[in-house]
Amino acid sequence: MATSLQSSASPESQALNTIAPQSPGSVYPHRHVRCIVKLGGAAITRKGELETIDDAVLASTTLHLREAMGLSDASLSLDWSRRNGVLITDLIPNSTGQHLDFPNAFVVVHGAGSYGHFQASKSGVNKGDLKNPLVKAGFVATRISVTKLNQEVVRCLASEGIPAVGVSPFSAGWSTHNKMLERDNVLEIQRAVDAGFVPVLHGDAVLDSTLGCTILSGDIVVRRLAEVVKPSFVVFLTNVPGVFDRPPEEPNATLLREIVVFEDSSWTIVDPPLGAEGKGGAVAAHDTTGGMSTKIAEAASIAATGIDVFVVEAGTPHALEVLRGNVKKLNTKSWKGTLIRSALGRSS
Amino acid sequence: MATSLQSSASPESQALNTIAPQSPGSVYPHRHVRCIVKLGGAAITRKGELETIDDAVLASTTLHLREAMGLSDASLSLDWSRRNGVLITDLIPNSTGQHLDFPNAFVVVHGAGSYGHFQASKSGVNKGDLKNPLVKAGFVATRISVTKLNQEVVRCLASEGIPAVGVSPFSAGWSTHNKMLERDNVLEIQRAVDAGFVPVLHGDAVLDSTLGCTILSGDIVVRRLAEVVKPSFVVFLTNVPGVFDRPPEEPNATLLREIVVFEDSSWTIVDPPLGAEGKGGAVAAHDTTGGMSTKIAEAASIAATGIDVFVVEAGTPHALEVLRGNVKKLNTKSWKGTLIRSALGRSS
Repeated sequence: MATSLQSSASPESQALNTIAPQSPGSVYPHRHVRCIVKLGGAAITRKGELETIDDAVLASTTLHLREAMGLSDASLSLDWSRRNGVLITDLIPNSTGQHLDFPNAFVVVHGAGSYGHFQASKSGVNKGDLKNPLVKAGFVATRISVTKLNQEVVRCLASEGIPAVGVSPFSAGWSTHNKMLERDNVLEIQRAVDAGFVPVLHGDAVLDSTLGCTILSGDIVVRRLAEVVKPSFVVFLTNVPGVFDRPPEEPNATLLREIVVFEDSSWTIVDPPLGAEGKGGAVAAHDTTGGMSTKIAEAASIAATGIDVFVVEAGTPHALEVLRGNVKKLNTKSWKGTLIRSALGRSS
Repeated sequence: MATSLQSSASPESQALNTIAPQSPGSVYPHRHVRCIVKLGGAAITRKGELETIDDAVLASTTLHLREAMGLSDASLSLDWSRRNGVLITDLIPNSTGQHLDFPNAFVVVHGAGSYGHFQASKSGVNKGDLKNPLVKAGFVATRISVTKLNQEVVRCLASEGIPAVGVSPFSAGWSTHNKMLERDNVLEIQRAVDAGFVPVLHGDAVLDSTLGCTILSGDIVVRRLAEVVKPSFVVFLTNVPGVFDRPPEEPNATLLREIVVFEDSSWTIVDPPLGAEGKGGAVAAHDTTGGMSTKIAEAASIAATGIDVFVVEAGTPHALEVLRGNVKKLNTKSWKGTLIRSALGRSS
């Protein structure tokens, strides 16, 4: 059954849906994506150690995803690889009565963290110019590193019975024009969702039709996916409890519990009411310090379309609660994290 | 510069070029692909051992590819990963005067061998039906295994300075309709070639719009790539010295040195002249035993378009000779392998 997915909004997206539309002969009905979840690079890897996964966070996040998707409790590993140290005949059941179906469709995107980041930054992939041998070498090295992480994330999800399929944006044809997204494969991601899989994308090195190449961040991938598949909500799992008014390690850093976004993507903090600091109950975008303001901008552009965005610490009970869809505006007092929502209300 | 690549020939291919055409704004001129090379799964892995690479064959093949591409002799590793056991600061040069350009563009496709084969065959991915939990589990397990091999092949090539980029067919949107190829991303592969990279594809589990899913063999990927990019020649690297008239381990198995293909893809053996066996100087397709006849059929359909196809043992001097483009009809006497060519002559 063909879906009626249409690209929305931005002029940038008008050019994008020249990719093949969903096959009219597809055997699977359309499935609504409940949640797009971003596994932050800083959350699932150890920042300071080259190519090192934070196993504990990835493992607990995997279990949270399993539960949130509504997979059955008995897990059948879908990773039948040698690393498990058992014979292939033990790995593969002759049949399985267990359903691998699950009611809540998810799409996963992960960042790079200590995979790819060193390679990309040391070589300047983000600046383009593949005629520079160092940039070209860095492009190759970055892709090797981020696809290695993608493989590990997919294996971890699959080992807990989640039917994860890796989709690398460069391979999938994602590309940019002067750093603006030019092509994607979101309709094919939807097709994989319809077939019952959980696509796992990531930040990647991609071709740029102006600069030669650049880095496509996982956050941009999330934004574009959200724009087209219109999930019920989006969750950013990070290594801190949410968005703060200043770097979280600073004294008196305050967790921003609720941010409201207007149609023009401008936003204001409504909880906590920061009026006590003499700012009249709201803090403008430029008052927030650090790299978080870029993240808020991406999240705000998603929230502006009526999709709730949550920022929460990976591996915590708060992460599980929000992934299960249990966090609503009215009961957020016991929940620790940041809700970024549209001033106009929710689309779902 | 936009290329004028057009799909040719088969009715099957008419539907394929609905993918985005090459970006008019691409910064790179069109590069002609000199050679598409298939690394046979049986050649680069150890058949009987689950997920085990034949390191010696892969390493020598990598060096052959380097030389055939015309890369400079001094190799700079483009794999800046932790496995190398050195510090990241030692891995990444501050700059490199070395050019990573090379005159001869290649596209690499590899088979699965002991990666993915077990997982796919035990679960029946080839038969489709993702509603069967075993098939769905097998699909995930197969993709994990083949992408693991792809990662290893890319790293091996990159470690010798080849700017290899992995492209997984499922991720790249390759799909089938009742096992017939329905979509591909060949124009994006050409774009990566134009940008100076060596795309590395593989046999993969893919979605099928009739059956649900199936296995897309590396041989089909090679055939489709050849159809669109029209390389000067195609090389199949295998674990035996070429195509034989019967399973090569049988007594009196004869290496078929030259096979001529007609416009309708029927073919005949012209060297050796098998008339001595009373077959009138040629052996028809159905006289050839074993799985090789499928391989010959794929090779024949490529050769029918005027592109020479060579089948040769990986890692041998004969493999290097043919990859360098040094094997011509007239000097093949000292060369050990099989040439499959069009009766009408060559297109290049």
